[in-house]
Amino acid sequence: MKLYSHEFYLTAAEVNAQREMPLSRLVTLIIDTATGHANAIGIGFDRMISYGISWVLSRLTIDIQRPLSVNHVYRIDTWIENLNRMFSDRNFEIIDVETGEAIVWAHSTWMAINMETRRPSDLTMLTEMTDSINGRPYPYDKGGKLLPVTDETEEKTYRFAVSDIDVNRHVTTRRYIDLIVDQWSLDRFDANRVSRFEIAFKREARYDELSRTVSAPHEGSPEVFDVMIEVNTAPCALARIYFTQR
Amino acid sequence: MKLYSHEFYLTAAEVNAQREMPLSRLVTLIIDTATGHANAIGIGFDRMISYGISWVLSRLTIDIQRPLSVNHVYRIDTWIENLNRMFSDRNFEIIDVETGEAIVWAHSTWMAINMETRRPSDLTMLTEMTDSINGRPYPYDKGGKLLPVTDETEEKTYRFAVSDIDVNRHVTTRRYIDLIVDQWSLDRFDANRVSRFEIAFKREARYDELSRTVSAPHEGSPEVFDVMIEVNTAPCALARIYFTQR
Repeated sequence: MKLYSHEFYLTAAEVNAQREMPLSRLVTLIIDTATGHANAIGIGFDRMISYGISWVLSRLTIDIQRPLSVNHVYRIDTWIENLNRMFSDRNFEIIDVETGEAIVWAHSTWMAINMETRRPSDLTMLTEMTDSINGRPYPYDKGGKLLPVTDETEEKTYRFAVSDIDVNRHVTTRRYIDLIVDQWSLDRFDANRVSRFEIAFKREARYDELSRTVSAPHEGSPEVFDVMIEVNTAPCALARIYFTQR
Repeated sequence: MKLYSHEFYLTAAEVNAQREMPLSRLVTLIIDTATGHANAIGIGFDRMISYGISWVLSRLTIDIQRPLSVNHVYRIDTWIENLNRMFSDRNFEIIDVETGEAIVWAHSTWMAINMETRRPSDLTMLTEMTDSINGRPYPYDKGGKLLPVTDETEEKTYRFAVSDIDVNRHVTTRRYIDLIVDQWSLDRFDANRVSRFEIAFKREARYDELSRTVSAPHEGSPEVFDVMIEVNTAPCALARIYFTQR
């Protein structure tokens, strides 16, 4: 299956103050769609765990030409662009079903980690996966290396609580993305939309850890910001967020 | 339509550290199912807004005999038990589809508020609704009056952020429930499950308001707690949570 699709209707209960899909929901939709495709081609969690390995999302870039807005039907397509021993690139496209127009693109890089050694596992043994390679490239910049933020202009602290913890006893991706979004005021999101988002996942945070989320303008830009979530001075996530005036 | 049903599969991405549906997700599932039924019988948001009125959830009680656990198929049924000028009672039942067993029940009380005057609107004019009354009663205690907590033993403060705000620019129900759950440690939820939950919604909170969530044992019980979320000493939600040892 070289293309996996999922169609959905965006309800009022799922949108934010700007009547759009929140960034954290967009990221979890992308991850859940990857999971759906992996299950469909036989490289899902259950199969992987039988080899003692598990998927880990390492890097994600999203380009948003137009936000997903309430009371519309969308389709998300995903495909595997390539894989090598260490990494697999997976792309996504979100289509406004009414107009047929593609409005969001995403690129992700995944690894498979040995659950015991925590070392990367060889992906080329997953033959179902090599058979499913589509090859269609990502149409935008996949994004470069994200660096720790050292010149922060904003800082917030937050202690991870029960509601932030997932089935693996790690902090959810949703909480990471919400911590990033919550660096800015509601006014900023009323006046601007997020047009691009990049994130690199560095370390899993755990229950009751105290996090520090810091941000700074990227190379002095008023519209692009670097963000870092850290626990005990070790980065958990590095991100870059691009705003565009509405 | 005197009974509305929705079937779903609970994935690993949707569960908490105990591999169960989080309480906040259970509450939003209940609300979304009510919305689905209301839309299906022609008393959904769009129709109501044409009368200048809107549904408001006033009171919710949930009895959990067995938690919803990962990788199972469930069905939620809802029906309107009754309505009068001011209030409508709506019940829910969640069935484990594999065994056919009912494991969760919920009772909710709804009002319709005039959007301009903020006064309750007469529900008996909604003839589609009176035609859909099922009458099947709630099998448990619907719950009594919840009172403000004055003898708190725990207190946490939290300032509402961008990610907490919904389409109506109010704080989401999910955030209220998570604030309540986050009053306790992960250890408590590992050793105990929530067997009953009652909540009364008192006031909508807004962006950047500073909330205070307080709790105290109910009449000295080690397993039942009263909880209150307040902003500027005005209660936003009053709740009671019942734990049962696993």
